[in-house]
Amino acid sequence: MKEPPGEFELIARLCGKLPRTRRVILGPGDDCALLAPSPRPQLITVDSMVEGVHFNLQWGTPAMLGARALNVNLSDIAAMGGVPTSCVVNLAVRPGLDAGFFDGLYRGLRKAAAEAAVAVVGGNITRANQLSITITLLGEVETQAMRRDTARPGDKVYVTGNIGDAALGLRILQNKIPAVGSARNQLVKRFLQPRAQVAAGRKLARLQPTPAAIDISDGLWQDLGHILECSGVGARIISTRLPLSAAYRRVYGDDCDLALSGGDDYELLFCLRNEISEAALRRHLGVAVSCIGEITRDKQALLVNSTGNISAVSHRGWDQLRPS
Amino acid sequence: MKEPPGEFELIARLCGKLPRTRRVILGPGDDCALLAPSPRPQLITVDSMVEGVHFNLQWGTPAMLGARALNVNLSDIAAMGGVPTSCVVNLAVRPGLDAGFFDGLYRGLRKAAAEAAVAVVGGNITRANQLSITITLLGEVETQAMRRDTARPGDKVYVTGNIGDAALGLRILQNKIPAVGSARNQLVKRFLQPRAQVAAGRKLARLQPTPAAIDISDGLWQDLGHILECSGVGARIISTRLPLSAAYRRVYGDDCDLALSGGDDYELLFCLRNEISEAALRRHLGVAVSCIGEITRDKQALLVNSTGNISAVSHRGWDQLRPS
Repeated sequence: MKEPPGEFELIARLCGKLPRTRRVILGPGDDCALLAPSPRPQLITVDSMVEGVHFNLQWGTPAMLGARALNVNLSDIAAMGGVPTSCVVNLAVRPGLDAGFFDGLYRGLRKAAAEAAVAVVGGNITRANQLSITITLLGEVETQAMRRDTARPGDKVYVTGNIGDAALGLRILQNKIPAVGSARNQLVKRFLQPRAQVAAGRKLARLQPTPAAIDISDGLWQDLGHILECSGVGARIISTRLPLSAAYRRVYGDDCDLALSGGDDYELLFCLRNEISEAALRRHLGVAVSCIGEITRDKQALLVNSTGNISAVSHRGWDQLRPS
Repeated sequence: MKEPPGEFELIARLCGKLPRTRRVILGPGDDCALLAPSPRPQLITVDSMVEGVHFNLQWGTPAMLGARALNVNLSDIAAMGGVPTSCVVNLAVRPGLDAGFFDGLYRGLRKAAAEAAVAVVGGNITRANQLSITITLLGEVETQAMRRDTARPGDKVYVTGNIGDAALGLRILQNKIPAVGSARNQLVKRFLQPRAQVAAGRKLARLQPTPAAIDISDGLWQDLGHILECSGVGARIISTRLPLSAAYRRVYGDDCDLALSGGDDYELLFCLRNEISEAALRRHLGVAVSCIGEITRDKQALLVNSTGNISAVSHRGWDQLRPS
């Protein structure tokens, strides 16, 4: 069926002035984009942001939304240690949005793409009742891809940055949790303006042996569960080692439930065969890193406090993540 | 934000048992799919089908919908003469759909993918108010990619198959045009179960010089306009040469307006430097082919009848396709 007129122009605006890289032979304006051969293994991922589910236009600017939509995808490439290269964007447009909105959205998306050296090579625009942005991102593997299925008993478990801030920021935006001042701003920013850990992921993927890794998008406990299930192992996580930010503690105290289950962090969780000090890793990766526990042989995840008392157990081979 | 539980399982079901090709190193279940290096130039396209805009669940089966969603993308690869290789699928799921619906949808999609030798390597599922299926499809160029910008004055303009059937089928489904019997079935099937001309596109791309080409998704007149605009040329189309099917004529008569403007055909329109007989092209491509006119130097499109009388003119450098 025919799309609204102007699709071509909107896509052209979205793609902007394409960087003249050797990678892009033909950008938007034909049936497909045409990319140069890829001598390296390729990564591909798709993620979608839906109004009312993943975002609310009242919460931030259109530019923030565009940048966030790309970063959610960049984080998947980061989790495998890849180099993002190009993307296509599907925009489902509901009535009631003006040109200024799309200008802002595209500006934010293009800026985030330029910062990550990603070419926006094409797209599609369709009418819908609900606004959504779906991005498919390609990347390349430089050496080895980090995977979820290579964690081994004895591995140390690390996370980058702070966790729980974005989940708390979301609840502040939803007026479920009160917060003011700089703590509020910081937490809300972590939700609205996530930054995928692409550079840290690339450096991690060069370590030997290649770490098991995942990005924390659904919440640390659930994403850890994916690693444990894929690798057929368990883990012992020390609750007091979870990296809660000062802003998190100021607004929410020492309760780590949001940090464990909240989601939207877009930090990396990874497992190293050899223990490396947090300080050395921080210097190497260029981001804060915390060792939060270790991989175990028994197929359950234990959450223990600093004195070793167990405060949570997940077992049943992580079947709780699956509907029965 | 967290997605509904079971996403992993739904994606795994969607992807089915992946063909063990050398192309797919790692399929669904990690942050990204991992594909083997591509020694050939690559094509990438994205297209989306939205409930209430592109389809209505009352019109056909879920399996038809799944197959159609892929064929819409296959048609873009066909238009450039490429070989489709792998895809990722984003599914936006509204409330009220049961497991049987998704089983059917995935079955149709997987079958269409298997027939086209396409690996479904990953996906994403999100909650939404409106059902939509967005597919990003990768392909490879074997020799040269057919483009929109290479039509030259004197080229003959051809289309594969019949045009207008799908547009008529849609209007029959919408109860806007009455039809019964085998003509109705045939026209409705052309809308609900399009088959992208992938094999014909591959053969066309091997011709020298490489034809200009596009797939007819928005309607012949508009898609021809894209070729003319990109190539900086005009065209003279002979209305009586438009390939209207017997079913089209039985239901709608000789009026070619739906064939020109209707869309959803997913046939190929292409321009050849050397005139080749329809019969020879048909033998070579394995599909019916009609020569409908020729490319001209003046930047306007003329629709003429068999005696040369002009019945329609588009000019202004095809700016009418653009919002002012």
